[in-house]
Amino acid sequence: MHIGWIGTGVMGRSMAGHLLDAGHTLFIFNRTREKAAALVERGAVWCDSPADVAATCHVVFTMVGYPADLRDVALGSMGLLSTMQPDGLLIDCTTSSPALAVEIAKAAATKGIASLDAPVSGGDVGARNATLSIMVGGEKAAFDRAMPYFEKLGKTIVLQGPAGSGQHTKMVNQILIASGMVAVCEGLIYARACGLDPERVLQSVSGGAAGSWSLTNYAPRMLKGDLAPGFYVEHFLKDMKIALDAADEMKLCLPGLGLAKQLYTMLAAMGGSRNGTQSLIKVLEAMSGMSGPGNLTDSKSAPRG
Amino acid sequence: MHIGWIGTGVMGRSMAGHLLDAGHTLFIFNRTREKAAALVERGAVWCDSPADVAATCHVVFTMVGYPADLRDVALGSMGLLSTMQPDGLLIDCTTSSPALAVEIAKAAATKGIASLDAPVSGGDVGARNATLSIMVGGEKAAFDRAMPYFEKLGKTIVLQGPAGSGQHTKMVNQILIASGMVAVCEGLIYARACGLDPERVLQSVSGGAAGSWSLTNYAPRMLKGDLAPGFYVEHFLKDMKIALDAADEMKLCLPGLGLAKQLYTMLAAMGGSRNGTQSLIKVLEAMSGMSGPGNLTDSKSAPRG
Repeated sequence: MHIGWIGTGVMGRSMAGHLLDAGHTLFIFNRTREKAAALVERGAVWCDSPADVAATCHVVFTMVGYPADLRDVALGSMGLLSTMQPDGLLIDCTTSSPALAVEIAKAAATKGIASLDAPVSGGDVGARNATLSIMVGGEKAAFDRAMPYFEKLGKTIVLQGPAGSGQHTKMVNQILIASGMVAVCEGLIYARACGLDPERVLQSVSGGAAGSWSLTNYAPRMLKGDLAPGFYVEHFLKDMKIALDAADEMKLCLPGLGLAKQLYTMLAAMGGSRNGTQSLIKVLEAMSGMSGPGNLTDSKSAPRG
Repeated sequence: MHIGWIGTGVMGRSMAGHLLDAGHTLFIFNRTREKAAALVERGAVWCDSPADVAATCHVVFTMVGYPADLRDVALGSMGLLSTMQPDGLLIDCTTSSPALAVEIAKAAATKGIASLDAPVSGGDVGARNATLSIMVGGEKAAFDRAMPYFEKLGKTIVLQGPAGSGQHTKMVNQILIASGMVAVCEGLIYARACGLDPERVLQSVSGGAAGSWSLTNYAPRMLKGDLAPGFYVEHFLKDMKIALDAADEMKLCLPGLGLAKQLYTMLAAMGGSRNGTQSLIKVLEAMSGMSGPGNLTDSKSAPRG
């Protein structure tokens, strides 16, 4: 089967690789061509634009950075919908705006093309091991058609509702992570400030009502000063902005998410945009005049505006 | 062995019961005598004051409500230290102030009495099933002496450091839970507001990076409107106040905990003091003009001031 894949960053590369392994012929495009080289070496066919990909493939996945990128890839003058044939299927795995997912689904429908928003969680490790949770919005028929591919990429695959529902579900996921990360940072800061051994504290608290995936997986990295990105701060900021914008639309008050967004904005201002989300600990340390292990990447790598 | 036990509320009753089951003779006191009746029926010996208990027992556990109660039980004129013999051992399982734990340990030491702060987590279920996490502060020799009893009460038993360290560790636990609960409430509010099926959303998000004990255990109760107490709001407020007071002492900035405390204070003002901590969902609903299943207990049952 010919499959298109747009976006070969850390996540997209691993995911597209699973489809190659499954025997599909992959037609790929990425804004930075070098990042697609490894897939081309493994047999994927390079295309010069999303339009070129969609001219060849009835099923096209997208996994890009920001909603603006997705808009361009899907709806732009050289975008997927400019060449895709009726009965095509667009599957977007980017974490993006629910409203844009609805807009793309509508534009696709006018051409007889089906569209799914299918953001994922599980990070680079989940992408590599094909254990992602895939949260899908769209029509049941399109979902069923995509399922054989989804099954190569993830293990928890749920149709959440109509177009946009996958993105909304991903926003719930990010809302949970946001305040959860604040909790972990504050717990560790407190433990260190009062002279406890944080590793020993984790023995007491990780297995009970205070336990969480973030505590188990991020607290040890924070304690070692390992701020390397699994998930980039700048991408998490993007997600929180999408969630807060959607919440504004719905007139929802989400004070915990609002606080987390402010703290991550401070982290970006401190030069942490290209660090991993666990580097939020540096903000909490700074707020209390503490210093801990690990350094943020230089702020010059994260220009403002 | 003669063991003293002060405080036979929901937690203390179950825990004391395990020591009875282990064959110890229990001497008990509780402010409200009726709440000790079940233990007396099972063979525990009623005493009229903490002083009476300590006059008979070399090892005395306390599990009371508030730091002020503990101060009275331990240091008051009819308190444990007024009658306890040298070589006695005080073990306080109340979640209380780290500073008070240090104060009691010092007062005990002047009489040759050892003291441990040993708050627990795991709730009523953990108390019943003897699966508590017991977080201990004090001397190693006292910890070793208490271990045979601890082993009847819990499964994760860790000496965290000198007097007060058990309480500080419990504060870390509560800090983690506080913002974690805000996260769960906001995730559910968002899911409902955008028309998702929250149960289905939980299928997608519970098993991954957004997962937590609170999400797994409290979200389903919130969705059913089950606001019954496992852990009382008024007790959690007490714990958060202790943590914030300790943080103030250390000049720590814990904005997530501060926010959670404000939201729980609103919950108490809405009449929720005697509900379970998962009823925080009612505050987030109120802030967004939503209504969901479940009603708070009447505010008359939770007088102010």
